[in-house]
Amino acid sequence: MLLYDLVNARRAHFSPNSWRVRMALLHKGIPFEVKDVLFTDIPSLGSGGDKLTIPTIGHEGQLITDSWAIVQHLDAAFPDTQRLLTPASAPVLKFFQYWAQTGLHGPIARLVLKDLHERLDPADQAYFRASREKSYKTTLEELQAGREDRLDAFRRGLQPMRLALGHHAYLSGEQPGYADYLAFGAFMWARTSSPFELLAEDDPVHAWRERCLDLYDGAGRREPVAI
Amino acid sequence: MLLYDLVNARRAHFSPNSWRVRMALLHKGIPFEVKDVLFTDIPSLGSGGDKLTIPTIGHEGQLITDSWAIVQHLDAAFPDTQRLLTPASAPVLKFFQYWAQTGLHGPIARLVLKDLHERLDPADQAYFRASREKSYKTTLEELQAGREDRLDAFRRGLQPMRLALGHHAYLSGEQPGYADYLAFGAFMWARTSSPFELLAEDDPVHAWRERCLDLYDGAGRREPVAI
Repeated sequence: MLLYDLVNARRAHFSPNSWRVRMALLHKGIPFEVKDVLFTDIPSLGSGGDKLTIPTIGHEGQLITDSWAIVQHLDAAFPDTQRLLTPASAPVLKFFQYWAQTGLHGPIARLVLKDLHERLDPADQAYFRASREKSYKTTLEELQAGREDRLDAFRRGLQPMRLALGHHAYLSGEQPGYADYLAFGAFMWARTSSPFELLAEDDPVHAWRERCLDLYDGAGRREPVAI
Repeated sequence: MLLYDLVNARRAHFSPNSWRVRMALLHKGIPFEVKDVLFTDIPSLGSGGDKLTIPTIGHEGQLITDSWAIVQHLDAAFPDTQRLLTPASAPVLKFFQYWAQTGLHGPIARLVLKDLHERLDPADQAYFRASREKSYKTTLEELQAGREDRLDAFRRGLQPMRLALGHHAYLSGEQPGYADYLAFGAFMWARTSSPFELLAEDDPVHAWRERCLDLYDGAGRREPVAI
């Protein structure tokens, strides 16, 4: 089992969608190796017409791309491990993934993306700036400017997570599950990319993030943080 | 099985949390009768120190209040019916309930609550105005004023629902489930309380709402709409 994952200049794995897969593999206890890549390596991965994105896994000669497809594959290919998606939970987890995309990734990008760029391998910086500035229709500097003024709104937007965490230690119940990994990926993206602190220390979401950092021998905590 | 439910002056059942329970009963095929009540009747329901809220069900001599507790009870008391909460899905559905509370109920209140008040039974109007104006710290008129300017933001906030509905007919998959009833309750609350249209006709959320209105012989569609 091989996980293709992006690294920055400090060799920190910063891709939020890769963290979903990494935590899924750890959750299931599936041994894996990591193949570090840069953005500018991606076009040369795979063979022929396959268009790969990160995360991709290599498993038994097959390359599988897209975090949701990878988790579905892991559930099917390792039936003796703990499932992450059940027929009853998968559609609601799909909603949760979209909530993470709009409620976490969207605002976090505007809080840390310039910092992330500065910490990339120099070989990746021009590509990253050009692609993101095209997609956001503004410069990275403009995108991140005034972030202090947007922090309260971001934290207010976490209210459904905060209230759910009033019932259980994790979003998935007393044990962590895929909802946690979906949200945790967004926070690992920020942690490895920027020293800007997203959460107040007395926020239940902060305590949850600490618990997630400790999971699986501190897999998240051992990752180099942005300084 | 008796469902205590609120009605307005047109005898429309408008409580969003009661719609969750009503749809849950219909989903499971459990026959039930409805006891219509006004807000001002609630203090005289129950006996002794029990503080009831709506929805409440009466089942085998027991009164059970709170929509989540009711659905848990229905799953346990009718094991041969289709479950609405499974161990894997319940925590994520709890998150979804909080998302509905913050992302649907919150903004919808600011779009329709004055209209709702106007359609209440006259016996309920003074209580409703006083309690809501205290809780929102403003008049119902001020709360709803300028709603046209907030409609776009409300619709943008539905983006995770809209994206999830790109995969399945319902939020719960190809068949409706509790995530749908949680969200549908909010839309029934608006529909029975105000002629103000929340959704654009070409919105996938609109098509989903139409499907939900048709469920169970059009239980939602048969309810008197606000005019």
